[in-house]
Amino acid sequence: MSVDDNSVIVGQKSTMNYVVACVTLFNTGTNVIKVIARGRSISTAIETVEMLRKAFIKELKIDNIEIGSQTFEKMGKTRTISTIEMTLTKPNKFH
Amino acid sequence: MSVDDNSVIVGQKSTMNYVVACVTLFNTGTNVIKVIARGRSISTAIETVEMLRKAFIKELKIDNIEIGSQTFEKMGKTRTISTIEMTLTKPNKFH
Repeated sequence: MSVDDNSVIVGQKSTMNYVVACVTLFNTGTNVIKVIARGRSISTAIETVEMLRKAFIKELKIDNIEIGSQTFEKMGKTRTISTIEMTLTKPNKFH
Repeated sequence: MSVDDNSVIVGQKSTMNYVVACVTLFNTGTNVIKVIARGRSISTAIETVEMLRKAFIKELKIDNIEIGSQTFEKMGKTRTISTIEMTLTKPNKFH
């Protein structure tokens, strides 16, 4: 999992927040963005991408979906959390 | 989203239940299985695949990951739920 300037990290806010974040990012001129989430937020991340593609950017393409897991210590116990990273591209329009 | 005999549908039980279901399915001789989940269960589905690949079937390959959404009526309101479908393959071993 790699986070850069063109990443939207999905957390516990409502889906629409992240849809707007993605649209804004595309409007800065970027053609490739990443939507990243961990654990329970993964379903929100998928909702974000689906809403984006059905209602906002019809020509959106899902280039790649990667899953993984991260291990961390919490109160002395080792816990594992799953992650998702979706790479989205918006094709250039030639007028 | 298509459910068939070689699908494991992930719900609200603990991850290990679904890991065992996948191992059992592969042991019947199938080389390709699908792990399917909706909404909150999606993170459990990803945990299942990650555990399967790290601890049980090292040679496991994730062939394809598809995301989608389903719309349904609940108490007069239209609700949308996101879905994931992961296709896993276990390469044949030639001894």
